[in-house]
Amino acid sequence: MGQNARRRIAILGSTGSVGVQALDLIARFPDRFEVVALAAGRNSELLARQTIAHRPALVAIQDESRCDDLQPAARAAGAVVMAGSDGVDAVAAHPEADIVLSAIVGAAGLRPTQRALAAGRTVALANKESLVMAGALMRRTAEQAGAELIPVDSEHSALHQCLRGESIDEVRRLILTASGGPFRTTPLEQLGSVTPEQALKHPVWDMGRKISIDSATLINKGLEVIEAHWLFGLPPERIDVVLHPQSYVHSMVEMIDGAIICQMGVPDMRGPIQYALDYPRRFAGPVPSLDVGAEGSLEFAPVDRARFPGLDLAYTALAAGGTAPAVLNGANEVAVQAFLDGRIGYLGIPRLVQEVLERHRPHQVESIEDVMRSDRWSRRAAEEMLSMRVFA
Amino acid sequence: MGQNARRRIAILGSTGSVGVQALDLIARFPDRFEVVALAAGRNSELLARQTIAHRPALVAIQDESRCDDLQPAARAAGAVVMAGSDGVDAVAAHPEADIVLSAIVGAAGLRPTQRALAAGRTVALANKESLVMAGALMRRTAEQAGAELIPVDSEHSALHQCLRGESIDEVRRLILTASGGPFRTTPLEQLGSVTPEQALKHPVWDMGRKISIDSATLINKGLEVIEAHWLFGLPPERIDVVLHPQSYVHSMVEMIDGAIICQMGVPDMRGPIQYALDYPRRFAGPVPSLDVGAEGSLEFAPVDRARFPGLDLAYTALAAGGTAPAVLNGANEVAVQAFLDGRIGYLGIPRLVQEVLERHRPHQVESIEDVMRSDRWSRRAAEEMLSMRVFA
Repeated sequence: MGQNARRRIAILGSTGSVGVQALDLIARFPDRFEVVALAAGRNSELLARQTIAHRPALVAIQDESRCDDLQPAARAAGAVVMAGSDGVDAVAAHPEADIVLSAIVGAAGLRPTQRALAAGRTVALANKESLVMAGALMRRTAEQAGAELIPVDSEHSALHQCLRGESIDEVRRLILTASGGPFRTTPLEQLGSVTPEQALKHPVWDMGRKISIDSATLINKGLEVIEAHWLFGLPPERIDVVLHPQSYVHSMVEMIDGAIICQMGVPDMRGPIQYALDYPRRFAGPVPSLDVGAEGSLEFAPVDRARFPGLDLAYTALAAGGTAPAVLNGANEVAVQAFLDGRIGYLGIPRLVQEVLERHRPHQVESIEDVMRSDRWSRRAAEEMLSMRVFA
Repeated sequence: MGQNARRRIAILGSTGSVGVQALDLIARFPDRFEVVALAAGRNSELLARQTIAHRPALVAIQDESRCDDLQPAARAAGAVVMAGSDGVDAVAAHPEADIVLSAIVGAAGLRPTQRALAAGRTVALANKESLVMAGALMRRTAEQAGAELIPVDSEHSALHQCLRGESIDEVRRLILTASGGPFRTTPLEQLGSVTPEQALKHPVWDMGRKISIDSATLINKGLEVIEAHWLFGLPPERIDVVLHPQSYVHSMVEMIDGAIICQMGVPDMRGPIQYALDYPRRFAGPVPSLDVGAEGSLEFAPVDRARFPGLDLAYTALAAGGTAPAVLNGANEVAVQAFLDGRIGYLGIPRLVQEVLERHRPHQVESIEDVMRSDRWSRRAAEEMLSMRVFA
């Protein structure tokens, strides 16, 4: 693909938050981007509007019962309509796409992400589960097909930007920044009694409920350590986390000569989306400048592991390897929901995850089905433990 | 030159602070570096020791009367000895050097730096005057010969590192950090009565007297703006300065998409020296890691232009172009010395420089002799004004 050609984009999950922001960006910069294929889960109404606005060659909806709703828009736009997994896979491997934005939420994103990689596509990856649950598999698939992965979230995009022009062999460590969430300074003895409402108050990013809780426990940062491992190939002991409440520095890389390269900017998801879709080019998009001089102070602090036991659980799962990170992820989802439902206390989240992890015997991941089996096992095990006893 | 070959180094100014630190680094890493030529001004004793230790093919001393002192060491090391400007120029253009470290202090570094560039050498540039006084000339010489300039000071090295893998066309602005010196928070009305002793107390770097005063007035940062302009080709209005008292972030680059890339580390000149000598490679050298998490807080603030009028003078000189930056530099040297000698007050430094600049009619720089003529004119004009009236 030529450096000056319009970038052709396929989007998996076009009706979700990242998909909608990507399409907004694409619409504003028609000289840089065009849409060739869109896939969504079940929001046929929005997908129909996106089809009219962006005129993709192919549009797919996972929920086959919604397929008919798409036909009028597709006819008007001259788009082919497909339904079900075959349709989503066709978008993932669309032959005209330069970049596939993988933005389906949750485990449903695994299969199409792997399809896109197997087809040798450059994948702009917003789906966290692909690397958290199936990192080794995705990495192997990408290497075999010569496909490239470009991260779409602020931390890994920052690492990717810090590593431009650098050799990965000359990296000493990756340093992920974490805001520390709402309980960064709460007295430890009060953590047992914090409520879901308190936990949902994230200091910087406006996020969904699940991610807000993960951000309070720092399990989200643990999941990001796992993703960083698979994206950049460094061992867990060379991936660190540092607290940075202002969330302007999105992450850093320490090189072997002691130089630390960091990337910062206003917290705005459109930054990483734009970066991934147009890499290696950059352009003046909608993200405002950060006035560094006016910001006053950027604070950094080490992570207190006693306060954030969830972070160590992720390192443990990554070291255990195989299916362990998928089990961590599944157990955490059950634990967070149980906390939000008032079934367990805040400190019960890492305790439940830890007990599930301890009961798990990890094995190699050969397929997405392996991963999904471990995910189901993990959720069942977590539910079982929840029904058996109380997690404080 | 192969990526894995030993880098062959010629050093202009081997007995100065940067030269000595470079040779120390080279001695510690004999598998990465070898010395092919050394030049010094008049410290024949140290140069003789360096010759024994590093066995260069050529050794030169500017002061011809010291040439004989070198002969025994040169004979023992199998080195050719040369004296005077011809000798220094021969080191600058040594045919076996991969990199020439230009580390002669002051205007004496101009001619040999230009020689090295004209010979197509990659120049690791520690001599500030080359770009401050003769930036256009150096840049033209480098472009004509296809020579590369790699900066050796913490700010420009940081910018160079931030720009790795980036396109200069996609840069919005360069942001130089400045510690703000000892008077960053001194009440403005007390600045008139600060003493040289107070001004020499630099909060972070341990530096010479002249540079410490320049760091207090921020004229050093103005000179760095001029250097950055010639190194990276951005216009003055896209080169900013921000105060950062901790001096860990050595500088930053804002890209057009709003991403800010910064480089940080412990303040240690060996970092930029090593970076320039081994670029584009990096290796684990003597510079310690910066423990970001333990550092607490990095502060940033806009520059109060009323407090630091010296900075605007540099922008003015750069905009005036031609010989104006050389005149700024010469007048500032006279003014700083007058302040250190108790002839003028602290606020007299920028006032004197400004009056000299206002009297100057800049013209194009065609040669180093043009630059030196403007430098002499500037110093004479400054002395004349000093003798005529009192600068507060």
